[in-house]
Amino acid sequence: MENPSIILYGPKNAKVEDTPIPELSDPHDVLVRINYVGVCGSDVHFWHHGGIGKFVNPSTGITMGHEASGTIHSIGPSVTTISPGDRVAIEPGTPCRLCKACKSGTYNLCRDMRFAAAPGPPDTQGTLSKFFRIAEDMVYKIPDSMGLDEAVLVEPLAVGVHAVKMGDVKPGETVVVMGSGTIGLMCGAVAKQFGAHRVILVDILDKKLEFAAKYLGCETWKASTSASTEENAAALLKELDLDEEGIDTFGGRVDTVIEASGATSSIETGIHILRPGGKYVQTGLGKPKIEFPIVAMGQKELMVRGCFRYGTGDYELAVGLIRKGLVDVKPLISSTTPFEDATQAWDKTARGEGIKNLIQGVLD
Amino acid sequence: MENPSIILYGPKNAKVEDTPIPELSDPHDVLVRINYVGVCGSDVHFWHHGGIGKFVNPSTGITMGHEASGTIHSIGPSVTTISPGDRVAIEPGTPCRLCKACKSGTYNLCRDMRFAAAPGPPDTQGTLSKFFRIAEDMVYKIPDSMGLDEAVLVEPLAVGVHAVKMGDVKPGETVVVMGSGTIGLMCGAVAKQFGAHRVILVDILDKKLEFAAKYLGCETWKASTSASTEENAAALLKELDLDEEGIDTFGGRVDTVIEASGATSSIETGIHILRPGGKYVQTGLGKPKIEFPIVAMGQKELMVRGCFRYGTGDYELAVGLIRKGLVDVKPLISSTTPFEDATQAWDKTARGEGIKNLIQGVLD
Amino acid sequence: MENPSIILYGPKNAKVEDTPIPELSDPHDVLVRINYVGVCGSDVHFWHHGGIGKFVNPSTGITMGHEASGTIHSIGPSVTTISPGDRVAIEPGTPCRLCKACKSGTYNLCRDMRFAAAPGPPDTQGTLSKFFRIAEDMVYKIPDSMGLDEAVLVEPLAVGVHAVKMGDVKPGETVVVMGSGTIGLMCGAVAKQFGAHRVILVDILDKKLEFAAKYLGCETWKASTSASTEENAAALLKELDLDEEGIDTFGGRVDTVIEASGATSSIETGIHILRPGGKYVQTGLGKPKIEFPIVAMGQKELMVRGCFRYGTGDYELAVGLIRKGLVDVKPLISSTTPFEDATQAWDKTARGEGIKNLIQGVLD
Amino acid sequence: MENPSIILYGPKNAKVEDTPIPELSDPHDVLVRINYVGVCGSDVHFWHHGGIGKFVNPSTGITMGHEASGTIHSIGPSVTTISPGDRVAIEPGTPCRLCKACKSGTYNLCRDMRFAAAPGPPDTQGTLSKFFRIAEDMVYKIPDSMGLDEAVLVEPLAVGVHAVKMGDVKPGETVVVMGSGTIGLMCGAVAKQFGAHRVILVDILDKKLEFAAKYLGCETWKASTSASTEENAAALLKELDLDEEGIDTFGGRVDTVIEASGATSSIETGIHILRPGGKYVQTGLGKPKIEFPIVAMGQKELMVRGCFRYGTGDYELAVGLIRKGLVDVKPLISSTTPFEDATQAWDKTARGEGIKNLIQGVLD
Repeated sequence: MENPSIILYGPKNAKVEDTPIPELSDPHDVLVRINYVGVCGSDVHFWHHGGIGKFVNPSTGITMGHEASGTIHSIGPSVTTISPGDRVAIEPGTPCRLCKACKSGTYNLCRDMRFAAAPGPPDTQGTLSKFFRIAEDMVYKIPDSMGLDEAVLVEPLAVGVHAVKMGDVKPGETVVVMGSGTIGLMCGAVAKQFGAHRVILVDILDKKLEFAAKYLGCETWKASTSASTEENAAALLKELDLDEEGIDTFGGRVDTVIEASGATSSIETGIHILRPGGKYVQTGLGKPKIEFPIVAMGQKELMVRGCFRYGTGDYELAVGLIRKGLVDVKPLISSTTPFEDATQAWDKTARGEGIKNLIQGVLD
Repeated sequence: MENPSIILYGPKNAKVEDTPIPELSDPHDVLVRINYVGVCGSDVHFWHHGGIGKFVNPSTGITMGHEASGTIHSIGPSVTTISPGDRVAIEPGTPCRLCKACKSGTYNLCRDMRFAAAPGPPDTQGTLSKFFRIAEDMVYKIPDSMGLDEAVLVEPLAVGVHAVKMGDVKPGETVVVMGSGTIGLMCGAVAKQFGAHRVILVDILDKKLEFAAKYLGCETWKASTSASTEENAAALLKELDLDEEGIDTFGGRVDTVIEASGATSSIETGIHILRPGGKYVQTGLGKPKIEFPIVAMGQKELMVRGCFRYGTGDYELAVGLIRKGLVDVKPLISSTTPFEDATQAWDKTARGEGIKNLIQGVLD
Repeated sequence: MENPSIILYGPKNAKVEDTPIPELSDPHDVLVRINYVGVCGSDVHFWHHGGIGKFVNPSTGITMGHEASGTIHSIGPSVTTISPGDRVAIEPGTPCRLCKACKSGTYNLCRDMRFAAAPGPPDTQGTLSKFFRIAEDMVYKIPDSMGLDEAVLVEPLAVGVHAVKMGDVKPGETVVVMGSGTIGLMCGAVAKQFGAHRVILVDILDKKLEFAAKYLGCETWKASTSASTEENAAALLKELDLDEEGIDTFGGRVDTVIEASGATSSIETGIHILRPGGKYVQTGLGKPKIEFPIVAMGQKELMVRGCFRYGTGDYELAVGLIRKGLVDVKPLISSTTPFEDATQAWDKTARGEGIKNLIQGVLD
Repeated sequence: MENPSIILYGPKNAKVEDTPIPELSDPHDVLVRINYVGVCGSDVHFWHHGGIGKFVNPSTGITMGHEASGTIHSIGPSVTTISPGDRVAIEPGTPCRLCKACKSGTYNLCRDMRFAAAPGPPDTQGTLSKFFRIAEDMVYKIPDSMGLDEAVLVEPLAVGVHAVKMGDVKPGETVVVMGSGTIGLMCGAVAKQFGAHRVILVDILDKKLEFAAKYLGCETWKASTSASTEENAAALLKELDLDEEGIDTFGGRVDTVIEASGATSSIETGIHILRPGGKYVQTGLGKPKIEFPIVAMGQKELMVRGCFRYGTGDYELAVGLIRKGLVDVKPLISSTTPFEDATQAWDKTARGEGIKNLIQGVLD
């Protein structure tokens, strides 16, 4: 096969098939030979349900994958920043570059973004292929000291960078991250690099908190699934010595909360532990509508931010954090599965095995 | 009586009684002879329920009133910015000035704020007295051209100034205000002064929208009480030519929404009409918890701000807007009730009569 | 001739010559039939000196002109936002869209910007041609109510928009504009639309100040050419009732200064009149190095901003201000010269005649 | 003596004399028993010249000293945040708390600030006394692990915190500090804690650069005193691999420059090495007026910030950085001189001996 690709046609229906090698249609395009592809929760959701929100067209299918690393194979005539043979982390989206969102420094909000493996018009091919085409400014050269498997982790780390930026985390702050999955861990790691003096990871599972404490060297707190959100908030503040006053209108001493679980109770608890004027970032995805303590949010004059993927400078900073040894992503890599067994990697992730499972690119 | 005051002891239980003239305990204090006091929704809530959240102590009661204007009667030894005889608008709160919120430019978030007629420790006397004590920097001199009755309206106008600042409204923007009561009108008026090119007031009552259109010279839109929030959002965008695309993940073309009703459906509609990267300010007060479209908020990467009272520079700008003739508050003044009949003004407001009903200060 | 163009080969050496009609090389390009071109100070400098900083290549020359309006002649295959026949204001630069400056919302700082009539590699053709090619997002549709001659003035108005944004002018501020040429007038007009309550134009010529006062309805102040900068600053503050304290370390009560003359004395005076924490924008161009009161700048903790051309949203807002009737640019149009007499328009401007002199596009 | 104090009456004229123990005039005042006082460049200037800008009144003199640590001796009746016996770092200024600067989060710009040992009305006593009075929010409790000698260094560290905040240093940035005296070192240390990935200290003395490299583990660069500022800028960029393009209009790749020397050539070099859109902070003090490359500043659209002392949150963060072991100030302490020999510590500093020389408080 010229360009073997993993194509999803519907729930639990994926095949390895040949597809045409993408052409470098724009003079700034590059063609990347894929080395590793990561599995994330959305891949599993696609695998089980055939899409998220929008569903793949069962007749055409879609090439899966969006977290990836690779090696530059060839470059368009106007490319100046990268060369064949360069090893790269791949940011898997191409914005229109012309709209107001793009020109305002927020290309992640571009309405015409073509994002890898996102079904619907315009469909964009994913990274689970031998070859992947992308613009030169969306690949980031990695140093020799960094493995191509580590380079896959630049994607979730960039999610963490973006979330922490949205939270405008400043040196000296106390930051609470709700949820300690991959994204929660990355948010915690980045918050430390933004100078937070206390970083506290919250979860309901001991196992995850133990890993977080060891991996980040941070504080952790276990939320109770039987307590109310107000009770959890009050207990967290008291046990971590963050507020002797309980949670009334002006309660709470936490500067920034990054919600990385999407759970309703976690969202509410997050609002209650913030100080007046505190900041809250929603990066976790759950139910479309939830119960929200709007009066507490209003009277504490919180800043609540949505958070969507990653944008200007996020990949660059994520690569820099790994290169300088400030964040070590190697402990997060749990397994590597051969290309043709990609569905096994999705199943593994679905069963909650490992933190980040990788799929190897097609071997020559 | 030396210092006649309207004291509330519980629901529907208010009396005119004498209280001691406040002493100028701090060298920067001033004593104001009250001329007018405005009635706002929270006064009515106090009158019917004996408080909001916290309730007045039935044995000590509390002097009511927080919107007010007056004339400087006497000044403390360190006062340099104001003189006896000066006519002033009164900002009715005294922050601690020492805490981090105060020193960060957000004294409205001070945990030790003493705010007029706010029950609970520390109780602070309201403005419905002959005399009211406050620090010199919390009274704002008004020009001869401005009536003392108009000066009462500086308070709700400052609420509007604060909300529009929280929304970071910029010249050229499209701003939608949900709810066209006094605060909604003030937010609309201020948004125009911040350079908004389109200001749209939304309500469910024709009568209010007609007043808004005439008063502000702005666009209006009537929300349907039977439609879903998604339907209302889609209809608003279509009818006002703000989006041909409907409301999907990235729908909406509105830059800023200021929610000034507190109604659940209004909050949700507000989120749906915003563009990606748009801004939302919650100034209306309603149920403590509501259904909230958290995923739409997240994926459009909205900035959602709480909004509490008014702070640095808000009163100053509100006085400036009236003085320069940029906002005319006279059309909002509906009635003036003698001091001793204050409860009648509360009843009038409770019945929805008029926009802003005033209570006259004690006559000599 | 197919595409008559005004080409400058060196000082005082310009010819009308035919050039090839530009091809729509990018699918998002449009071809504009030019209607009017404005003359600005830099054109005159080119005319007299053969360039600014960089000089035109005497063998190839350069097509002059960068302020322009026109009518869409044809569009590339991917163009969706504009149609043939649309009347447009033209933003005369094409950024690379790939670099960090472009992706950070500051495309005006792109190192690979191709700007009309800017000599040096890459040379970019100017607008003094029958046809001009540009990307679709750099033309701005104007309404029927707006003349194509007015549309030329969008360029200097966008310079004013950018400068006032750099100064972060907020409602209620006192803004002083140093210099009342075209750019100074535009800055003053925009500052009012950003809500400044006092706008003061400063110049050394009565004639210019009289025009400014009439055109903007603003305050003016005449600087003395014999006084020191400290004396001028003290006199301005006293006469305009901005500070009774004179100019010591913390003197001055002006919130924002926009320097639009480039004169050394004006720069220094501007620094001295600012309040502690005030803001200063340098838009005027003069000597590369000047005497600068760095200690006054430091101890008042001023924010001093450079200001280069215009960027995201500036043209859009400028068109909006004219369309809504908030800024009237018609009084600034002083003359219209036929295409083939373009050099006469440069000479006229060199002699200080008129405010904005236009050159008509080639007639059919 | 009840309250021995070091009083300066004029150049080289200082005496140890008794002064009254300050009274706790405000209920939020505390009285501190001074343990250590640091010597800074301004003390030496006072010692040699009798003041800076303003001069001490030769008949009344002024108590010297503004960097200090101590132990709480007694507290006013409203003090709640600190107790007798607490060991503290002292922020030596009291703002008015009422003006717009104070209420905007910039109390360091208060026109009525009373700052220790600042001559002129209102004169404020310095810290070189047995007892020093200050408001409770201006003393910062230090942990047991931190020496009272180290606590003196919180002052210059807070200067560094303030400068880095003014420069809005973000994670991943390249930051150049011009000048590697105490303040330069502190700025470099803080820039690292704000996440800068490259921190480069520049000086003209090998000895200082060697200390900087060892102390901060940072890059250093030696400026040439014979080269022009443009040559120095070009050499720095080339040798540190920051720009292959030299310094034209858009040259330079440095994100933030913090100028901590005050030297004219250093200021100019600093402007030239910045990238377009870069940031520059002036913390060094030198000649009131200098040659400044205003066109380079303008065309690169730099943000240039003045920087005055320290303000909200700066001391708090500085204490936190030392407490958490992120900045170690012990290597900067060079000597400790007995109270009665204070002038010897000034002379030592004048001779350039040591980095930070301390004066011991009065022993019992």
